[in-house]
Amino acid sequence: MKIVIIGASGTIGQFAKKALEPRHEIISVSRKKCDICVDMADISAVKSMFEKIGHIDAVVVTAGDAYFGPLAKTTADKFAIGINSKLSGQINVVLSALPFISDNGSITLTSGMIGHETIRQGTNIATANAGIEGFVRAAAVDLPRGIRINAVAPAVLTESIKQYEELFPGYPSADGIDVGNAYRRSVESVQTGHIFRIGWSINI
Amino acid sequence: MKIVIIGASGTIGQFAKKALEPRHEIISVSRKKCDICVDMADISAVKSMFEKIGHIDAVVVTAGDAYFGPLAKTTADKFAIGINSKLSGQINVVLSALPFISDNGSITLTSGMIGHETIRQGTNIATANAGIEGFVRAAAVDLPRGIRINAVAPAVLTESIKQYEELFPGYPSADGIDVGNAYRRSVESVQTGHIFRIGWSINI
Repeated sequence: MKIVIIGASGTIGQFAKKALEPRHEIISVSRKKCDICVDMADISAVKSMFEKIGHIDAVVVTAGDAYFGPLAKTTADKFAIGINSKLSGQINVVLSALPFISDNGSITLTSGMIGHETIRQGTNIATANAGIEGFVRAAAVDLPRGIRINAVAPAVLTESIKQYEELFPGYPSADGIDVGNAYRRSVESVQTGHIFRIGWSINI
Repeated sequence: MKIVIIGASGTIGQFAKKALEPRHEIISVSRKKCDICVDMADISAVKSMFEKIGHIDAVVVTAGDAYFGPLAKTTADKFAIGINSKLSGQINVVLSALPFISDNGSITLTSGMIGHETIRQGTNIATANAGIEGFVRAAAVDLPRGIRINAVAPAVLTESIKQYEELFPGYPSADGIDVGNAYRRSVESVQTGHIFRIGWSINI
């Protein structure tokens, strides 16, 4: 398959790429360090990128910024970071890629453990992550031509948890290889409207 | 308590008001048919409204627009309706109201059944609703001074389901009086970070 990975140079993106590249043609897109560069928050840039790339079989998004900080000190401008990038940015990709995705192709977005499990200063990313999951559940029943859509919701990566230790004391982590495989599963399997929770599960 | 209800003239807002007004001083805010008028999507309007109102004990939001339509025909501009109004609009209220809410006061937002249960053309509102729930879960552990935050997630109202029958064939509905009581419970009880699902529950 011909697969566009947006965020391919990031930590999660690299694991997704590693899991997919043995069997597929990968088009790597990022915002920095990129041959094909795009800022997902810019809908016209995203649109013209997909027009240039043309026909594809799948899109994987592992990109998206969010703001970390105490809510009582968060301005609307700061809060807009996660809304415009991790939430609307990923949705921009879906809306723009749709006409170019083959019948029975797939879209895989990225949410995350924060959104259900909470962390200090995590309200902005929790909002974006949960929004993406609502989007995926609803879009799955509305997409045309057998196109599937899922999200991967990783715990903090085992490879990154040391760096973010203060935010994740005692939290579970997900191995990068398992996270990468979740993207492969979403692309190559048959599920749709599914949230692949890696390294954690919902407590009810 | 002194309680601001934003969306007080709407169908849900009227039930919330009815449940709360016997025991509290209610300040009713709407976008249309209003003494105090505000468009939640306009952060500076929301801010200056709370500056004028001054000290309060609780905020209830029952307002927020979203776009209904098939995803494959939805433009980014249409998708922005639910993001800017039902999602960021409610968050604008939280960020702007916070400095004026008393210690141990409360905030109650509105999500909805769509976000977990899916309907035709419902991707935009599902995204906004799910985002609000992620916001509430995360904000609850981050708010200062004992301030609580919850969301009410009603099924389609029994009083409205005839009007929306085509979108909700065979779906459960929630009686307005029960939905109104959920806002009362959120304001007067002790729970925080909770989603009050009225008329439905999550299937897992």
